[in-house]
Amino acid sequence: MTGNLSAVGVGELFQLLRDGVPRTRAELAKSSGLARSTVAARVDELMRMGLIAPVADAASTGGRPPSQFALNPAAKVVIAADIGASHTTVAVTDLAGTILAERSNTIAVSLGPEPVLSWVVDTANELMGEAGLSRDRIAAVGIGVPGPVEHSTGRPARPPIMPGWDGFDIPGWVQQHLEVPVLVDNDVNISALGERGVGWPGTDHLIFVKVATGIGAGIISDGRLLRGAQGIAGDFGHVRIARGAEIPCHCGNTGCLEALASGPAIARSLAALGIEAKDGNDVVELVKAGNLDAIQAVRQAGRDLGEVLTASVSLLNPSVIVIGGAMARVGEHLIAGVREVVYTRSMPLATEGLAIVQSGTAGEAAVRGASILAVEYALSPQILPQSFGFDS
Amino acid sequence: MTGNLSAVGVGELFQLLRDGVPRTRAELAKSSGLARSTVAARVDELMRMGLIAPVADAASTGGRPPSQFALNPAAKVVIAADIGASHTTVAVTDLAGTILAERSNTIAVSLGPEPVLSWVVDTANELMGEAGLSRDRIAAVGIGVPGPVEHSTGRPARPPIMPGWDGFDIPGWVQQHLEVPVLVDNDVNISALGERGVGWPGTDHLIFVKVATGIGAGIISDGRLLRGAQGIAGDFGHVRIARGAEIPCHCGNTGCLEALASGPAIARSLAALGIEAKDGNDVVELVKAGNLDAIQAVRQAGRDLGEVLTASVSLLNPSVIVIGGAMARVGEHLIAGVREVVYTRSMPLATEGLAIVQSGTAGEAAVRGASILAVEYALSPQILPQSFGFDS
Repeated sequence: MTGNLSAVGVGELFQLLRDGVPRTRAELAKSSGLARSTVAARVDELMRMGLIAPVADAASTGGRPPSQFALNPAAKVVIAADIGASHTTVAVTDLAGTILAERSNTIAVSLGPEPVLSWVVDTANELMGEAGLSRDRIAAVGIGVPGPVEHSTGRPARPPIMPGWDGFDIPGWVQQHLEVPVLVDNDVNISALGERGVGWPGTDHLIFVKVATGIGAGIISDGRLLRGAQGIAGDFGHVRIARGAEIPCHCGNTGCLEALASGPAIARSLAALGIEAKDGNDVVELVKAGNLDAIQAVRQAGRDLGEVLTASVSLLNPSVIVIGGAMARVGEHLIAGVREVVYTRSMPLATEGLAIVQSGTAGEAAVRGASILAVEYALSPQILPQSFGFDS
Repeated sequence: MTGNLSAVGVGELFQLLRDGVPRTRAELAKSSGLARSTVAARVDELMRMGLIAPVADAASTGGRPPSQFALNPAAKVVIAADIGASHTTVAVTDLAGTILAERSNTIAVSLGPEPVLSWVVDTANELMGEAGLSRDRIAAVGIGVPGPVEHSTGRPARPPIMPGWDGFDIPGWVQQHLEVPVLVDNDVNISALGERGVGWPGTDHLIFVKVATGIGAGIISDGRLLRGAQGIAGDFGHVRIARGAEIPCHCGNTGCLEALASGPAIARSLAALGIEAKDGNDVVELVKAGNLDAIQAVRQAGRDLGEVLTASVSLLNPSVIVIGGAMARVGEHLIAGVREVVYTRSMPLATEGLAIVQSGTAGEAAVRGASILAVEYALSPQILPQSFGFDS
């Protein structure tokens, strides 16, 4: 029994320290409800494991033992992977999410799971070697994929653009090569984690919207990712909007948000005006070149997106909406359309504290979110004994 | 330290037993990770406090000590109050949510907090007395009110139909008379808890929609109530729908769901056809009498509601949508309209496991939810020492 209660106490204390804020033994005793003598023993145990470290204390004088402690971000690393439709990025980060090494490659997800995951594992090993880190330093792996994932198993669930991945046991396969916990989620969910971690660390209610070839959202509510019964919460690209009810969507319905406001949809509307635009990248270039038709089309796409986001604001009462994805590179024109509709159509109480902003992660939301996913799991009290060898 | 760790162990074990399923000491040791000797001591402690009780064991023979234990729902009671616009209900329930005594009264919430809460407290005391229960049996109070509530404080936040209640410290006032934890939430949130508790106990993803004078939703996602940044998640009565964009709403906008599909809105549309209908009750009576115009108007209101719920299904991926409130009494006509739109407009993966049903709580969703709110808090490990006197 002692061993188990010891782990509980260590986990509890560590949970208090993992935000990186330095605390004294007295503060830890007060917050945890544990006796001072117990706190002292637990602090020694966590320091011995390298998970926490003493923090320089201005008020302290020489000779006294250190009085403040905080998470030691260098204690372990995690592997973060962002698998996209055509590109994949792998990073090694510390426990504070700082990227220590990173590499991207053009690799089609449609090649299937083994070639893509092999590249992820090989790259992770290469990056670890180049950074001079031994493999036993890896605490967990976080992976984002461009499709729905069954949360409890980490298996893709009928992903539309990932042929060969349906039901594939990603954690099981990766664990044959990296023997640590492997967490998998869809790319918009982990991007929501990444945006919050980088730009809005105090926010418990954030919606990240990816506008690219498709449109979807990752939702953080009361501090947690919403996943839904089938893991497809936030998959709102096929909500019908008022304008253009006759426009067909690849899903088989008409008038879907994605059929009107995605990159390819905007390009199609411009092509119909005789403007040369094949895809979202062309639209972005036209807007950057000041083409008025392209600017107007993007603004209207923002209004369409705003229509669906107005419903999202009423349902979820977020404090931040972050617009990201390739189309967010058009800058303020898209967001101006979103704001126009959301602020006009929502109840005042829901919008008075609401920020609608462009992604601030320079396209790294997903890989940063994958790191956060892995770190949160690696540092959770339930898993601490396994991943940090408390029971050894 | 021993005292604290004792409480932790007791709370952990109790948490395992609170679902009411009987378990053996060996099962408890396995689930908790505690040593068998510790489990035996904790079980004795919980039995001494009356929180758990031995369960008759068919395989057991005379003389042996009881081998299975479960929550004793009679250990404590909670007070549950549903404060509505014009009616208030107070109930005494046991820890399993069974109603032991209940009383309703016509009392306008617009009278202000003190007259209404005085009636709640007086009625609670009367019901306790009539049931022969002493006041020290009360573990907690749960209260639902018809407006937004700041979750952390239990204070109404600018409630539109509760004059005099804005910012009122409901828990503080009630605790002057009943010295136990007091939990307050809005009526649709607690109704969602009540619907799940009564009809869908295994469901982690449920939306309860109240259709009455107003329209709003309580959302349970991943097993928890969503509240949002200002506590107004689910307040979707003012989302604009495609039909009738010119129809003015009392909020100042046009085309809101509430301006088209609420009881008064349906009555207005019938009155415009020359049919005598003043409010939602008249609409319900007309439908029950087989009036074709009324049936068609209700069906269309269901389609309007379905339009907003389609967005909700994409955002939240629920497994159950429960339609309640006074207008749900019209029966299948409203739900048929909802289903027509939601099943037509949502992605197949989101609807293949989705049930859209009428409330099964006969109007008692809110009071049952208030009981659940109070019981969940009273039985949470954080609060156990206080509310059950573990520290005494």
